[in-house]
Parts: sequence; C-alpha cells; structure tokens
Amino acid sequence: MKRIFDPIHHFIELDERETALLDTVPMQRLRRLRQLGLAYLAFPAAEHSRFGHALGALAMGERVLMSLRRGDSGYFADEQDFLTQRRLLRVSLLLHDIGHGPFSHACEAVLGMQHEVRTQAILRLPEMAVALADADVDLRDVLALVTGDPAGRYPVLREIVSGPNLDADRMDYLWRDSYFTGVVNGRYDADQLVASMRVFDRHGQPALGVDGRGVVALESFVLARYMMFSTVYFHHTTRQFEQILHRALRAVWPEPRTLDGIEEFLAWDDFRVIEAMRYLNEPAARAVRERDTLFALVAEFNAERDLSLFEACLRELRAQYGSAVWADSQEQLMHRLPLVLDGTSPTVLVGSRAGVVDAREASDLIARITGKVYWRKLYVERSQVDVEAARALCLAVTAGRRAVEA
Amino acid sequence: MKRIFDPIHHFIELDERETALLDTVPMQRLRRLRQLGLAYLAFPAAEHSRFGHALGALAMGERVLMSLRRGDSGYFADEQDFLTQRRLLRVSLLLHDIGHGPFSHACEAVLGMQHEVRTQAILRLPEMAVALADADVDLRDVLALVTGDPAGRYPVLREIVSGPNLDADRMDYLWRDSYFTGVVNGRYDADQLVASMRVFDRHGQPALGVDGRGVVALESFVLARYMMFSTVYFHHTTRQFEQILHRALRAVWPEPRTLDGIEEFLAWDDFRVIEAMRYLNEPAARAVRERDTLFALVAEFNAERDLSLFEACLRELRAQYGSAVWADSQEQLMHRLPLVLDGTSPTVLVGSRAGVVDAREASDLIARITGKVYWRKLYVERSQVDVEAARALCLAVTAGRRAVEA
Amino acid sequence: MKRIFDPIHHFIELDERETALLDTVPMQRLRRLRQLGLAYLAFPAAEHSRFGHALGALAMGERVLMSLRRGDSGYFADEQDFLTQRRLLRVSLLLHDIGHGPFSHACEAVLGMQHEVRTQAILRLPEMAVALADADVDLRDVLALVTGDPAGRYPVLREIVSGPNLDADRMDYLWRDSYFTGVVNGRYDADQLVASMRVFDRHGQPALGVDGRGVVALESFVLARYMMFSTVYFHHTTRQFEQILHRALRAVWPEPRTLDGIEEFLAWDDFRVIEAMRYLNEPAARAVRERDTLFALVAEFNAERDLSLFEACLRELRAQYGSAVWADSQEQLMHRLPLVLDGTSPTVLVGSRAGVVDAREASDLIARITGKVYWRKLYVERSQVDVEAARALCLAVTAGRRAVEA
Amino acid sequence: MKRIFDPIHHFIELDERETALLDTVPMQRLRRLRQLGLAYLAFPAAEHSRFGHALGALAMGERVLMSLRRGDSGYFADEQDFLTQRRLLRVSLLLHDIGHGPFSHACEAVLGMQHEVRTQAILRLPEMAVALADADVDLRDVLALVTGDPAGRYPVLREIVSGPNLDADRMDYLWRDSYFTGVVNGRYDADQLVASMRVFDRHGQPALGVDGRGVVALESFVLARYMMFSTVYFHHTTRQFEQILHRALRAVWPEPRTLDGIEEFLAWDDFRVIEAMRYLNEPAARAVRERDTLFALVAEFNAERDLSLFEACLRELRAQYGSAVWADSQEQLMHRLPLVLDGTSPTVLVGSRAGVVDAREASDLIARITGKVYWRKLYVERSQVDVEAARALCLAVTAGRRAVEA
Repeated sequence: MKRIFDPIHHFIELDERETALLDTVPMQRLRRLRQLGLAYLAFPAAEHSRFGHALGALAMGERVLMSLRRGDSGYFADEQDFLTQRRLLRVSLLLHDIGHGPFSHACEAVLGMQHEVRTQAILRLPEMAVALADADVDLRDVLALVTGDPAGRYPVLREIVSGPNLDADRMDYLWRDSYFTGVVNGRYDADQLVASMRVFDRHGQPALGVDGRGVVALESFVLARYMMFSTVYFHHTTRQFEQILHRALRAVWPEPRTLDGIEEFLAWDDFRVIEAMRYLNEPAARAVRERDTLFALVAEFNAERDLSLFEACLRELRAQYGSAVWADSQEQLMHRLPLVLDGTSPTVLVGSRAGVVDAREASDLIARITGKVYWRKLYVERSQVDVEAARALCLAVTAGRRAVEA
Repeated sequence: MKRIFDPIHHFIELDERETALLDTVPMQRLRRLRQLGLAYLAFPAAEHSRFGHALGALAMGERVLMSLRRGDSGYFADEQDFLTQRRLLRVSLLLHDIGHGPFSHACEAVLGMQHEVRTQAILRLPEMAVALADADVDLRDVLALVTGDPAGRYPVLREIVSGPNLDADRMDYLWRDSYFTGVVNGRYDADQLVASMRVFDRHGQPALGVDGRGVVALESFVLARYMMFSTVYFHHTTRQFEQILHRALRAVWPEPRTLDGIEEFLAWDDFRVIEAMRYLNEPAARAVRERDTLFALVAEFNAERDLSLFEACLRELRAQYGSAVWADSQEQLMHRLPLVLDGTSPTVLVGSRAGVVDAREASDLIARITGKVYWRKLYVERSQVDVEAARALCLAVTAGRRAVEA
Repeated sequence: MKRIFDPIHHFIELDERETALLDTVPMQRLRRLRQLGLAYLAFPAAEHSRFGHALGALAMGERVLMSLRRGDSGYFADEQDFLTQRRLLRVSLLLHDIGHGPFSHACEAVLGMQHEVRTQAILRLPEMAVALADADVDLRDVLALVTGDPAGRYPVLREIVSGPNLDADRMDYLWRDSYFTGVVNGRYDADQLVASMRVFDRHGQPALGVDGRGVVALESFVLARYMMFSTVYFHHTTRQFEQILHRALRAVWPEPRTLDGIEEFLAWDDFRVIEAMRYLNEPAARAVRERDTLFALVAEFNAERDLSLFEACLRELRAQYGSAVWADSQEQLMHRLPLVLDGTSPTVLVGSRAGVVDAREASDLIARITGKVYWRKLYVERSQVDVEAARALCLAVTAGRRAVEA
Repeated sequence: MKRIFDPIHHFIELDERETALLDTVPMQRLRRLRQLGLAYLAFPAAEHSRFGHALGALAMGERVLMSLRRGDSGYFADEQDFLTQRRLLRVSLLLHDIGHGPFSHACEAVLGMQHEVRTQAILRLPEMAVALADADVDLRDVLALVTGDPAGRYPVLREIVSGPNLDADRMDYLWRDSYFTGVVNGRYDADQLVASMRVFDRHGQPALGVDGRGVVALESFVLARYMMFSTVYFHHTTRQFEQILHRALRAVWPEPRTLDGIEEFLAWDDFRVIEAMRYLNEPAARAVRERDTLFALVAEFNAERDLSLFEACLRELRAQYGSAVWADSQEQLMHRLPLVLDGTSPTVLVGSRAGVVDAREASDLIARITGKVYWRKLYVERSQVDVEAARALCLAVTAGRRAVEA
C-alpha cells in the first residue's frame, strides 16, 4: 500500500500492483508533460503535470464508484463484481492520458492525430503489458475504456473514464486546474455531484446520472467547464502561444514521421521540446522559451452575434497586413452534456420520485445554455504590423457597423 | 484605528469614528440577527450574523473603491472628493442592514414591510445621529444610499450600496454565505470582478460597469447568486421553516402594531424571538426551536415548463387534503442584472476598445439566462396527511400527464 | 440515512437512530450554545455552536476509527466488534458536550461544577434513554466514555472521546475554531495525524498512538492547540468578557441552586441568558450585550520569567486602585500530551521499526516544550481608573526592575 | 501596468520597468528551475518553479513595506524615500534567486559554490544592466541586498530580502511550498505577522521586528519553517534523490569548470539536466528520470539523544556493507531567529509598551526551541544490500543499546 499526497484529494492510496504501473517509464514520463501546455505563460503557477492528474483521476473515480455503491440500485452484481470493476476503473484512469505527446494539442496537430493508436501501442509495450497482467486487468478492457470504445463491456465505467458527461477525468482536472492556476471558476460542487451520482436504466442499458439533489451540482460542473475555457484554456495569451508553438514544433520536428515509432514518441516530452528549442534558429522557438509575445491581440469577439463583425475586421486586416494576421476562432458547446447526434435521446439522466428525465428537462439553466459558445480573436504579428494602427482599423470597422445598425 | 479579523476579508480596518458607529446599540444588535435566518436548520454551520456581513460589506466596498480609483478615468474630481465618497460609502455599507428585524423576511411579512421607514427612524435616533455627525457624513446621504433613493447625490455609490447589479452587499454575502454554509457554489471570481470594475458614462451620468477582462467574472458572480438560491436560500428545508416561522411569529406577536415604535422594534432580535417561543403553546414555535419538520416535501418542480404539472398536483392535493397542503412558489430572475423596465436601456456596462456595451451583448451566457427561474414545492402537514399517499398522488398526476404528452 | 453538510468534514452521514438522537431536545439545544462562548466579541465570526462541533466530533471519530481499522494490528476482534465499537463511539461523540451550560466555563463557575453529574442526569431523561436504547448502545458505556471513566470497557474509545492526547473532540474543534474565527493557527495536519493513528500495546492494555510518520503531524497538533490558546481562547478581549460575564451571570442567576434540577438547567442556553440580560440593571449585563469593554488592559506578561514583574505591577496597581484592578492569570501545559502524574509512564506512543517509544523521545520539539505556559494580564476598570496613569505605573515598575537587573 | 495572477497573492502588479526585468532571459529561465528541486518525487504536486516564487517574494515584500509604512514610526524620511526604497526592494526580491543553478543545492555542491559571484555576473550582463538602469535602481544596491552585504545602505531592506529572520523570501516560500505540496504545515499566520512588523531602533540602527501583537504569528512562522523541513524538505525520499542527483550531475557535468562562464551557466536549467540524463549510461541519471529509489531507508533517528545510536548503527552497517551505506545527517536551527554569534545581541525585536525586547524574552516557546534539530537517516543501496537484513541489523543495535540502558 502506497499513500501519495495530493493537494486536491489528500492521501491517494495505491496497492502494490497499481504502484508498479505508476513506476513504469511511460507513466513517469507524464511528470514531464504539463497538464495545461503553455498556459503557464499566462498563469505562471500552471506548471502542474499530467502525472498528478492521472493520480487525481484515479482518486476521483474511486469517489464516484464508492458513491455508486452506496446509492446502489443493484448495479453491481455482487461484491466480486464491484471489486473487478473497481480494479479496472482505477487502472484505466491512471493510464488514461498515457498516449499524450508533449503539449498535447499542438503535438497532435503537427504529428498527425493518432492518440488512440498510440495509447494502444504503449499499453502493448512489454513493460506495460506485464504490469497490466500483474494487476489482473485485461488490456482490452483498459483500452476500450480509455479510447471510449462503445462496444466495451462496461458502459458505465466507459462514461466515468472517457464519457462526454460525468467523467472523472474532467471532474478532477477542473478542480486541479483551478487550484494550480488559482482561478476559482473551476471549483464546482464536487461533494454534492459525487454524492448524487447514480446508475439508471436507459433502454435496458445502465447509464450514469444524478439524483434530484444533484441538479445544481451538475449545473455548477457544467458552468465550471465553460468558465475555465473562457478564463484559462482560451485565454488570449495561452492561445497565442499555442499558435507560436505550432511553428516552433515544425522546426523541432521537421520530419514528423520520425516520431511514428512508439519508442521515439515516448522519448519526447515537454522538457525535451523546450530544450530542443534552445538550439533552433526559429524565432517561434525562442519566443516559447522566453515568452516573447510575437503576436498582439487587436480585437476580440466572444459573442455569437459578432460573427460578421469578426469576419469584416478579419477581411480588412488581411487586406492590409496579409499573412501577418492570425485569426483564432475557437468554439465549444457551452455545456458538454448533450452530445447526442439525433438531438432527442436522453443524455445525463436525472432521477426523481417521478421518474428519470433528461438534464435539460430537470434544469432550465442547462436547457437555456444548450448550444455553442465562441471565442474569436484577431492578432497581428508585432514584427510586421503597427499594432495601434491595426487596432484602429478594427475600431473603425466596428464603429461603421454600429452606425449602419443604428 | 481598529483592526477586526474576518475569515473572508482578513483584517478589516476601521477608524475611530467608524468604530464609534460600530459600538452603537443598533449595530451591536446585528450580532443577534442571523444573516440567513433559519437556514441553519438545513445547513448547521450557517449561524453567522448580519454583524459580520456589515463589516464585510464595508470591506468589499473599500476594495471596489480602491479599484475604481486605480482604473480611474476621471470619476473622482480630486483626492478630497475620493476621501469624501470613501467616508460616505464605508459608513453606508456598515449601516445598510440596520433596519432589519429578526428573521428579516418573515418579520417583514408579519409586521408589515417598513424597512426603509425603520432605517430612517433608527438613523435619526440620538445615538446614531450623533455618531454620524461625528463621522462627518450627512445623514441624508447615508439614507439615500441605504434606501437606494434615485435622487441621491452619488449614483455610483448608490449602485455599490444598494444597486441591483454590482453591489458590495451581494458581493460580500455570496462569499460569506458560501464560506459559512460550506457550499462552494457562491465563490465567484471576486478578485477579477473587483479589479475590472470601472465607472463609465451613461447618457452623461456616471455608471458602474466592468472592463472587458471582467466579463467571465461577472458571469461567475451572476451564476453564484443563482446557485446559492437553488442550493441554500430556497433549500426545501429552509423554505419549510420559513413558513413555520410565519405561524410562530404570529403567536409571538399577536399584536404586530406593538412593534411600530422604533425602540420596541430594536428590542427584538433572533435570540429574543427564539426565547419567546419557549413559552408558547403554539406547535410552530416549538417546531422552530426543536427543528421539527412539520411539513413533508411531496413534490418539487423547478423547471419553467412544469407550471401546469405543479398546478395539477396542487389541485389534486388540495382536493384531498385541503389546508394541510402548502404550496411554495418562489421565483427570481436567473440573473439579476437587467432590471430595466423598458427592456432596452443598458444595465451593467462592459467596456472594451470598441466602446461600451451592455452585458447581454458582451456575454452570450448572460443573454441566454435572461428571464426567470422557478422553485416550486409542494408540502403537506405531517400531522394531518399520510405523506406517502400524498406523494403517490403526485406521481399519479405526473404519470398521467406524461402519458397524455407521449 | 441522513447527510448533513459541514464546512470542515463535508458530508456527515447519520443513520436513522443517530438522527433520532440528534433530534432530541437536549441535542437541539446545543444550537444555542456557542462553541467559543464570548470569543465572538473579539473575533466576530466566532458564532458557531456546539451543535456543529458535536457532528464534527462524530465525523472526526469516524475518520480515526477507519484509520485504526486500516492499519489494524489486531485491535478489533472481528467485524462485529468493529461495528459495536463504531456505534458506541459515534453516539458518544455526538453526545459528549450535552451537559454543557450556557457559556460553559463561566456557567460552571457560577453554578458550581457538576458537568459529569449533569451529563448523567440528561442521558437518563426518558427522551434520551429511549433514543439510546433504540440506537443499541448501553447508556453506561456512553457515560463512561463521555465522563472519561477509567474503569470503562473501552480504553481506546475513551481516549478518542475524552482522552488528554488524541481525542476527536480537540481534533475537530481546533480546525473548526480556526475555520470560523479565520485564524489559521489551528490548522494542524489532520490528514497525516489521522492516517498515522494506531493502537499499540502498553503493559498489556491497548493504547492510542501514532506511527513514526505521524510525529510531525502530532507536533503540529500540539502546537495548534497552544497557538489557538494564545490567539483566540486567551485573547485579552475574550478574557475580559469572560470576567464581565461572571458578574452578569450572578445577576442573571441570583439563586444558582434554582438550576440544580436538570429540566430547569436544560431550559437555559446562551440565547436566554443574553435575553435575560436585557432586563437587568447590572452594568456587566449591559456590557456583554453591547460589547462594552468595562476593563482596559494595562499590562501583559506572557513569559514565565515575568512572574515577579507581574506580581510587582499587580501590587502597585492594587495599592493605587484597589478592587478596580483585575488580574487574569491563565496557564496551560504548552502541550497537553504528558499528563501523567508520575512523570515517567509513557503517554502518546510513537511506533517505529525499533519499537514503541514515548512522544517525548520521538520528538525533540515535544520534549523541549514540556511544561507550562502563562498568559498573565492586568486590567483596570475604566469607570474608576485613569487608564493611562495605570499603564504609566506599570511601565515605571518595569523600568525600575530592568534598571536593577542591568 | 501588468497584473499577474498567483494562487497565493492573487493579483500581483508590476509596472513597465519591472515587467521589462521579468521579461529578461535570466528571469524567464527561472520557469525551468523548480523551487523544491526533486521534492516532486516525494510530493508529486511540488512542480512549481522559482519564477512564481520570485513574483511572490516581490508581492510579500510589498505587503511588508506597506505595513511598515502604516505603522510608521518615522522610518521613512518622506514619501520620496518610501518610493525609492519600494522600487529597490521590489526589484531586489524579483531578482533574488537569479543566480541559482538547476536543482540548486546539488548544483552548487557539484559546481562549487559561487552563488554570489554568479548573481553579480548575471546582473552585470548587458541585458540586465540596461533593464536595471531603466528601472532606476542602482545595481550595487540590488547586489548588496541580494547577497546580504552588511555594508549596504539599507539594513532594513537587507533584512527583508536576505535576512535570517523576517525575510520576504521565506515568508513567501513557506506558504507557497505548503500550497503546492498540499502540506498544511507551512501555513503560518502571515496576515498577523505582516500587520505586526515594525522598524525599531537597535543601537542607533533601524532594525526589523514585530509589535507585541505579532508574537504568536512569529512563533507560527518559526514553527512552520521547522515543520516544512521535517515534512517536505528533509523527507526521506527527497533526501535520497538529492544524493542520487549528486552522482547523476557528476555524470552530466564531468568537467564542472565548463560552466564557469556565466553564459554557459545560464544555458542550464532543470529541463536540460533532465534531458541530458536521457543519454547517460549512469544508473543515477536513469533513477532521477524514472524515480527509481536506488536507496532504501533502513533507520531514522531524528531526536538529538539518538546521535550515538545513529553512529553505532552506521558503524555496523559500514562494517557489513561498506560503501553501499549512505548516512544522511542534516541539521538546522529549530528556529532560525537567533543567528548572532556572540549569543547576546538582540535578534528579532518585539515591541511593547514597556520597551523593545528580544523575541526569546517575549516568547517562552521561542526561548525553549532555541538550538538545533537533527534529521539523521541511514540508507543502503538496494542493488547491493539485502534491505531487510540491514534493517534487522539496526534493530539489533537499537535493542542492544536499550537493554544496556535499562
């Protein structure tokens, strides 16, 4: 039994077989992958790694599973079934980020997205396969949970590991990112959310949901995600360095295919990338290391109705400054719950005396905030553009529009 | 200079004249008025008083004012003007709740609502008038701010003291109630909100708003209020005891007019009411003291669309159980920002390079959650009704409805 | 199953029988007894009651018991024994403060100290006896634990409930008082302390201790207590109101024997006392209600070596001002661990590979801070004494002493 | 004006010239030096860098200076003097760690200790010298403060920057390390300590101290340091990796003199060292990267009286296992305040009505814990030693000793 101290979950306990998994080279490598990539260039304290998050996801999954057991409506066949699912869940959450590369999103963009393939390849490395076998879990089950395979044997565990709704992954990282950046917006009501989680029946399949007392906690969870996107993940400085990083990574990896082999892929981490940048003659590489803001934000449009204004400004800027303009246009579902394709099937279930309904029926707030949210930003390259002139240009476009509208 | 320690604001400093105001009998009485009335019967730790909140509102107002000064766009005429406004603001926030009676909402309902009249009468008591004069503030200015008189000389201070949008009152109590109940939902991003506050010009009048960096903090503030209503202020146990309290207070004060005199009014506080209940032969009085839940919740409908279902259940319950049914139907604006009557004037202003817009334009989230939110609950009296039968009746109504809809 | 939310322990779960105990009149009365008496006159936020602490002590005891079970060295005979001890421990901690009167220390001084007798009388009231029987615990066992009877059947539980060392009572209240006052000094490392707790064998008897990893946590616990005494419990304002309260209580209860009956005793609480003071013509009663500092602190001597200086100042003050001087001389063991009378028997045991030793052997810090600590304060009554003159007098005595020493 | 968000100090504001200093290459490099070296191998969350601490030290210094100004006894000659000192203090705290190498203690041991020389060389680099000149501070003043030169012009600022007692460096890092590890023990009462800080006269020289109300806060500060050493800085895993790191660094830098040049020195950081280890054939290098615990703890003796036992065990272990034994013997002053050589001069001054005394006179606790504290640990190399046999050997030595003593 190993106890590891974590600021979010306090003592996290691992048994010997879990500890052996933690001690593998691919898991230790997560210490050198930062959870929030370059967000530390906007929030200096955001230096925490995926390693702490892997432990935290396991701890959060444990809390969820204990809650499901306590409010049990017959989901677990018996104690043996509970223990089997618990073992599988804990291992899967511990390993769920193992396929990430350095600065994961940028890395995937530059190398080509092969996240699931990589996870599979890593779990099949002898070191991992042996540790998994020792831990008495089936590699295929772990893989199914981590990659979100809908054909897997454990649909509820899949929701906890990689589901779009009540996953332990997000339940941990919102609090964790909030703690390490210091931004309070991610601190949803985890106590109540976890305590309210239940397994319901959906067309004969077990599905994760919350009981009626958990509705506000669910709302707080959904909004915490939205606000962390607004404040941290899509912060204008974070975004600009993400863009700079793309350029830098293309210099670091002029031949991305050389990382196709899993051994070579695993030999890379944030530290090595940052170190590699030291030798490069590429301004973007220097900018990442030294926090040079190569771009300047000239205008920002975060409301849906501003799309045409954003496009008008972009047109004018492009006409004037050509490729020295960078338009960043991110979007997310304001809340991520209703990911269903047909728009009718229930998603997060909410139980009450009167039966089980969809979260949108149980919560006017969730119903209202269904839909997308946009973060659109226009930047220019400082080295090529007179920033104040560019800003003035956008102001003129905006004023012109408003005059027309008025 | 007196320093008082507070868990939310840490050291709060008062000068001698403010300390003299704090030492008056009407202010000390606030120690015996609980900030959240009977909510401690649902959240045991919610035992904090209006006294701490009065200090906290002053401290929050100070933070706001210092931020306005730092981001000053010419609002303060000069240092003298700043000091004058500061003195007035601090005193007004310290005194803003002085007219509250015991368990304030229930008290106002039973005694008749005379909150403003009472504040005025109290501030004119010799003890208060002298202390105010010593503090070098004009009683009329304080009164105008506390009662929200639109004709007052300081519209910005009025917004901070008693405005519907960015008032220091709510800015303090959301954090405070969150801290003392332990419920995290009230912890909005106060650091960023305060730092973003600015005075803008609105049709020639100074008006409070936030700069562009404050939009998410404003959203978090708006939602914290909504979530604290859902979780704490309208908790089904809090609400039921509010109802029981009404009955009990009518027994405590069979002749409400006896409290019309301000001296007698001030002689009452939560402690005295609770003590008075000890002697009464009224079950409601005993229930408040001993936390007897005289009512049982039989159904809850918090979504807007459930109105007809709520009414149908209520009809059936009434038909069956008559006056042993209590229907509680609360509503609030989901966010309180756009309180304008004509629906067009700007409310909270948000500044950006491109000009000043309304919060609903700057935030899709705020735009979407404009409108009301409902908390409808049906209770029956345990002493007269078979609770499970009443619940079954509501379930049947609900199932019938759903069958018809399907 | 009832879940109650608490800021320190988050959800606290009670089964139906424990809930029935919580619902008794003597338990609900704890809502009207403040945990820190009049300390709210120095720390306004310290308004929390013994009710929350009773729940918190239960929750802390649960944490301790789960830790003992996890690190079990054979202490629990079997699962049945664990469940029996658990039931008894939880009930006993819930009830441990039930015999307290309003403002407990002052109350006991004025009424005569009969704390144990009262607890016994209350537990034997029909309402309590029935609830205890329903909860399947033996009243005598509860009584033995709450009153610390050394002849009780469960020495380890006795240590947890009322022991001088690692009791759940103090483990809860240090954090709780720290949280509600906002003073950080009481926040010892509870996670590590609890996780380190073990049952050792001491001369054939089971005894509570910590394993080697818990030494620093034990130090932090011991020091938290000392620092909370210095900062909060013996704060000069808290102490002066404790003294004023004595006077006031003698006016409230001119015939203390009238409270000898347990029914009458239970009819009193802080609220009733404070309300009773409203009618009294006693300045001390008014002072407590209105926070009049009748006394002024003129000198303070908290170091051991200052005893003779304290006495010299007291002599001079008495000579000058007679009974208008109040000397407050409090003392405590700097840490409370070694309460043994013969000074040799082990106290808190610390386990390691090399065997079990006393905490003083395992910790140089604990060894060094063995002994007493003093808080000596001299006050004068403001109404009768020129405060500045009294302070000058003490300064002169001090200067004279120092001159002689130099 | 730039605002940077920090979890400890919330918004930290820098003016343009300070921002320019922050943007220099040597300052940005601090992002790649971890504040606690390899402690993240014991406390996974301890991944925070010296960069955040540099900002935090500046923020803490600001708080101290504002407090000194508020309680001013004439220390600042005038507003101009205050502003000059403030500018110098802020810059010096921002830069105070700039001379650190990767994993600073191990680095200094391997490269030879030249911390002050390096700081001087770095500050004289053109980039830094220009930025300092722009910031209107004298390089020599900064250097005197950072290196603690007793001949400097500002003795009070020197105490705040690099003094042994009330330095902003430690005041920040105790809270920071506590926050990022999650260990509560470092959370001393910073609010009260800062608010109590004063400048006193010591033999005609201004000297830092606290007023009487700050004594317990000072105690909490002193003990927080001791407890963080016990829990985190000298954690047995932290210490063993420190030792492994020494070996690894000798492999990384076989010719330490190649880093003598300041340009080459600055080209190294934790990231580069960790990356360099990837290529080395040295087991210690692999161990640091992969968290291999090459050593096993076999015995630990943290009490002063255990010295001879420690030595006896060490002798036996060495006799048996030779160089496969590693003895780690760390010591610290239990509190760091009285660093004076002659043992008589006052150190931290504590003011009161009766004059200014030394902290040891004002606090029995501080007086008692004067002296050293020891952390002695014995490890063996796992690859060469049967760990259980080595532990048994130490147990036998210990048992033998105790038998003799008994």
